[in-house]
Amino acid sequence: MKILIRNCTLVSMSQKRPQIEKNIDILIENDIISKIDKNIIEKNIDKIIDANENVIMPGLINCHCHVAMSIFRETVDGYITQDWLTEKIWPKEAKLTEKDIYEASLLSFKEMIETGTTTVNDMYFFPEETAKAAIESGVRIQLTDTLMDLNGYEAGEKKINSTLNLIKKYKDNPLVSVNFGLHGFYTSSKEYSKRVINLARSNNLNLHVHFCENSQEVSDISSSYHQKPVEVLEELIPESKVILAHSVKLTDEDLDKMKEIKADISIASCPVSNLRLGCGVAPLTKMEEVGLNICLGTDGQGSGSNLDMFEEMKLAALLQKGINENPKLMPAYNILKMATINGAKALGMDKKIGSIEVGKKADLILIDMTSTITTPINNLISELVYNIKGSNVKMTMVDGKILMER
Amino acid sequence: MKILIRNCTLVSMSQKRPQIEKNIDILIENDIISKIDKNIIEKNIDKIIDANENVIMPGLINCHCHVAMSIFRETVDGYITQDWLTEKIWPKEAKLTEKDIYEASLLSFKEMIETGTTTVNDMYFFPEETAKAAIESGVRIQLTDTLMDLNGYEAGEKKINSTLNLIKKYKDNPLVSVNFGLHGFYTSSKEYSKRVINLARSNNLNLHVHFCENSQEVSDISSSYHQKPVEVLEELIPESKVILAHSVKLTDEDLDKMKEIKADISIASCPVSNLRLGCGVAPLTKMEEVGLNICLGTDGQGSGSNLDMFEEMKLAALLQKGINENPKLMPAYNILKMATINGAKALGMDKKIGSIEVGKKADLILIDMTSTITTPINNLISELVYNIKGSNVKMTMVDGKILMER
Repeated sequence: MKILIRNCTLVSMSQKRPQIEKNIDILIENDIISKIDKNIIEKNIDKIIDANENVIMPGLINCHCHVAMSIFRETVDGYITQDWLTEKIWPKEAKLTEKDIYEASLLSFKEMIETGTTTVNDMYFFPEETAKAAIESGVRIQLTDTLMDLNGYEAGEKKINSTLNLIKKYKDNPLVSVNFGLHGFYTSSKEYSKRVINLARSNNLNLHVHFCENSQEVSDISSSYHQKPVEVLEELIPESKVILAHSVKLTDEDLDKMKEIKADISIASCPVSNLRLGCGVAPLTKMEEVGLNICLGTDGQGSGSNLDMFEEMKLAALLQKGINENPKLMPAYNILKMATINGAKALGMDKKIGSIEVGKKADLILIDMTSTITTPINNLISELVYNIKGSNVKMTMVDGKILMER
Repeated sequence: MKILIRNCTLVSMSQKRPQIEKNIDILIENDIISKIDKNIIEKNIDKIIDANENVIMPGLINCHCHVAMSIFRETVDGYITQDWLTEKIWPKEAKLTEKDIYEASLLSFKEMIETGTTTVNDMYFFPEETAKAAIESGVRIQLTDTLMDLNGYEAGEKKINSTLNLIKKYKDNPLVSVNFGLHGFYTSSKEYSKRVINLARSNNLNLHVHFCENSQEVSDISSSYHQKPVEVLEELIPESKVILAHSVKLTDEDLDKMKEIKADISIASCPVSNLRLGCGVAPLTKMEEVGLNICLGTDGQGSGSNLDMFEEMKLAALLQKGINENPKLMPAYNILKMATINGAKALGMDKKIGSIEVGKKADLILIDMTSTITTPINNLISELVYNIKGSNVKMTMVDGKILMER
């Protein structure tokens, strides 16, 4: 299968290329980007896409999500988080069947595809059902179960074994990869957390964990581990690759300490969800300063409302400028990196996805730039962050396959 | 002309009706809503709109905008406000012709109509050109010039006379009304500000003024008036109707004082612009507490990016929950009020627009609720605030005329 995209404006997010290139052709052979050039001449093309007046950029990477939570969309208004969980979410989650998870996942993947996200880092129950739905939908997914020993030693061990089995099962799958997902330090004993982290490290896999989402969690960790959250990291994560979801409640001092930890740390920030649940604003500016890899996530629709990563980009940018009272912070291009190449780095997939480069997987989106809301275009990169929404995505391609074309 | 909207879900924003009503018909005769009922039977209908699976709500009211700034969209990234104004905006504004303003206004009205805003409160130069574009586009506008005496006594007097002439000219226009727009206390002498406010009061008209947008403005007012901004209000605005745009930098103490002023005060909050320019977050929760009328605005596209009022609603809601770390604040219905009936109150037009009621002007929008991003609908009011965007608006009607139908 050969697809030729003609005459696009390319925002490749590759460090080796200019930020913006005009009149570019892109050749895709099967799942791979095989040529990027002007006026490509090529025989036996199966499909030509005329992308004049369109931007092509890498598919967005959602680094923290609970994919099957689509069914809980807009159930949160008027609740404090704990009451929402105990009254609305947990009783329903306890009754979810495998079929529910499968169908709810399909709904989310449809939403992802329609709004330009091509890869998602998931953490939820019945991960195999979500994997099945991902393969059927054609999206790329990093799967993590919800490991914890809150419900006892045996339940915890069962979850670990389940992850080890999933790793084997999807070892060579082109779309699904499996990593270790620890629900949080506050829902697991230190022994268990250590065990999961060591397993991830010895398998050379990522750890995906909720971290310092709100003040309650910080005090819960402190009282059960007798350590500050950042001290837990200092002890447990050296030499590991970790994705810390949220990380709202980190002080400058915490972040200075994290800088010194010899580990590969990424922060998956979810600004919409963090505001919606009354958690606050993650200190992304300071995180950038100390050199952490920042990526973005939507969280589940229960708190994040939807899976439109363009909204997360805009909010991440606006919040840092507004809260720090400095409009020079968070230039638009940095924000685009968070939603693309930084996300790929977080998931350990930056050799494969996250930018448009020859030899990389063809995970890309085509954006319509002709609507009133993007007229005139004074600054294309700013337009992508502040005015484009998921609804402006015209085509979504994952692994060389067109999943949606408007 | 008779238009019948069949079988909609009505979110009328009328205090006399339920928040949500299903299977409602709405009859529009010329510019007026003449019937709201189930199964209306009526002869000689010119057009029937099947609104099954659609929400009908009042057209949104944008209470602070600089309509012709569409041409400055996305010119601000990387600038601090003062540099942006002196390097990017003022030199270009000085060269703007009447034709530029007319064309830039047409572009903004197209954007407004496409994203469901039916009325706008404008403050800019060459207001007659914007009025001409509004009448051609069919939108409702409250026009205010940019009064100031910063450029000398004569320039200030000329601006006042121009407003007085505009008031006469548009006195009986169905779409255009004219009020007094004072650019800000920091760009006018106290004498001039007082004169403008007194003129507005004696003409029984609104005063539209920028107020406490950022820290610099607060200190500028304090040093030129030798009063705190809130003391300026205490002295100058009693018995007046005022719309204070922004009002970011008001303390609890300021707001307690404002509560005691015997005036009709509305706050036009512009959350996107306030973050983008690094101003901060307006204290809407405290403003609500002291009983001020809160409405929303996009500001011009130079700082607000676009005129999509759904984005302002979502951000206003999220920010109050997040910054105050309380997710129970700002229930979605309150936010909808800000963008509709509160806006109408601010503009002194609540007998005419801002809710869907028999006898009111037919300014309304039809929203598509069938997209993936609004599936499932667990809470319709929350959906309107957190998931609906301007792009989901299917039809926009102002003064009984359909201006856009997707």
